[in-house]
Amino acid sequence: MNELEIVERLRRLCLPSKDLVLGIGDDCAIYRPRAGEELLFTTDQMIEGVHFTRAQKAADIGERALARSLSDIAAMGGEPRFCLVALAASDTKWIEEFYRGLLRLAKRTTTTLAGGDLARDQKYHCDVMVCGSVPRGKALRRDGARVGDSIFVSGRLGKPWDRRIEPRLELGLGLRGLATSCIDLSDGLSLDLHRVCMASGVAAEIDRVPVMKGSKVERALHGGEDYELLFTLPDGKKAPRGVTRVGRIVRGVPGTMTFEGRPLEPRGYDHFRKQS
Amino acid sequence: MNELEIVERLRRLCLPSKDLVLGIGDDCAIYRPRAGEELLFTTDQMIEGVHFTRAQKAADIGERALARSLSDIAAMGGEPRFCLVALAASDTKWIEEFYRGLLRLAKRTTTTLAGGDLARDQKYHCDVMVCGSVPRGKALRRDGARVGDSIFVSGRLGKPWDRRIEPRLELGLGLRGLATSCIDLSDGLSLDLHRVCMASGVAAEIDRVPVMKGSKVERALHGGEDYELLFTLPDGKKAPRGVTRVGRIVRGVPGTMTFEGRPLEPRGYDHFRKQS
Repeated sequence: MNELEIVERLRRLCLPSKDLVLGIGDDCAIYRPRAGEELLFTTDQMIEGVHFTRAQKAADIGERALARSLSDIAAMGGEPRFCLVALAASDTKWIEEFYRGLLRLAKRTTTTLAGGDLARDQKYHCDVMVCGSVPRGKALRRDGARVGDSIFVSGRLGKPWDRRIEPRLELGLGLRGLATSCIDLSDGLSLDLHRVCMASGVAAEIDRVPVMKGSKVERALHGGEDYELLFTLPDGKKAPRGVTRVGRIVRGVPGTMTFEGRPLEPRGYDHFRKQS
Repeated sequence: MNELEIVERLRRLCLPSKDLVLGIGDDCAIYRPRAGEELLFTTDQMIEGVHFTRAQKAADIGERALARSLSDIAAMGGEPRFCLVALAASDTKWIEEFYRGLLRLAKRTTTTLAGGDLARDQKYHCDVMVCGSVPRGKALRRDGARVGDSIFVSGRLGKPWDRRIEPRLELGLGLRGLATSCIDLSDGLSLDLHRVCMASGVAAEIDRVPVMKGSKVERALHGGEDYELLFTLPDGKKAPRGVTRVGRIVRGVPGTMTFEGRPLEPRGYDHFRKQS
């Protein structure tokens, strides 16, 4: 199978979309914005030997690659519109399986595969860009947390790194116009909460964390790859079902955090931490 | 330097943009579409050992990575709006130089760096997504070539693979409302013209090609990485300055091509050609 044949097969697998004037098969995809929408853009890499191995199922890797970017869209309160997939790989069966997994989640979340880039290489690598949509001015950001807000997280934290990701798109939608800030937990609660605090110029106190069965508090605080949402609500606002209040935003040196009264350092995953 | 510090430095280097509500530093970038515009999306990978080596200057690789995607925007008649850069690398000096080269071209072409993803890995890899803009319905596509159209190319073909790319953005803009089809020559004239013919359901006759000094006709026909534009104009339309008429669109089995009266096979670069 050559590139043209792979692309032809993908084209047939893709969902139609009324916004996408032109999908796979030209130099660019063409998207026609809807009235009053703002567009969200995020991109995430999955690298063999860093984020996955070939011992894992290719379909799971494809699904995860899309899920990680969709989690960013969820964290901004967006609805997914389309994705572009850049893939370096060599085995066509693997590539087919990768796309099968990716397209399964794409279909479930109405994310159109609009295009991408395919290269042949022995080291596998993918990068998934997702475009999402929010009504003008309604995106959830990191910089809106205010003193007195309660801090919540969805789900339970401290997941094993290869657990299936369920992007919290519905929760993100429900938080529009309600949450003052939101972020997805991709690098660990301590590091991601620190980012919210720095962007918002506030401090935070954490009282408790919902720990996944079989995991530990330490991992729930600092482990990455949870892909749950952390968000803040003003006092008196009713939280959506199924989320846990973990603490509150307080006055203080921006970025200062405590857990059960003791200092909490941002120690989540930073690709470049060790190279300072 | 850690990821946060690299991202902070990049944020300071980035151009402001009135369309970009939010740039680097949140889960997603936010773009506010202008009235009446359609958006173009393209993504291209540059892989160590496939598209570049570390013996080359990092700044040149950064510039080239952006230039290749901008060439796709040019081929659709678009104006660049912003880019997302996914980069896997390990040496922070190299990363800084890569971005310096990329941002130099970004500034010259008013392409805002809106975000991306940075991962640490020993094998270097980048993927640059560019968003461009065209007035509604004005994008140049591959599928509009008609029997009787003349075929043109910009510049001279058969370039060495590491020659600096100058994306033909101005030419692309000038072809809006004029050209019936357009494509950028990234995989070689024979393969890219074949794509236009297949998409448009036509055949083509090539009479001549403008060969770069020191190169050969064979390379000008089949070599990749020229990043010039190939486009078709209806009979009687005046071509922009500095382009060369190379042949014409004819009736025939879609995709059939000739050069100086002899059959011309699509033999340009296809990453997956050998794996059939």
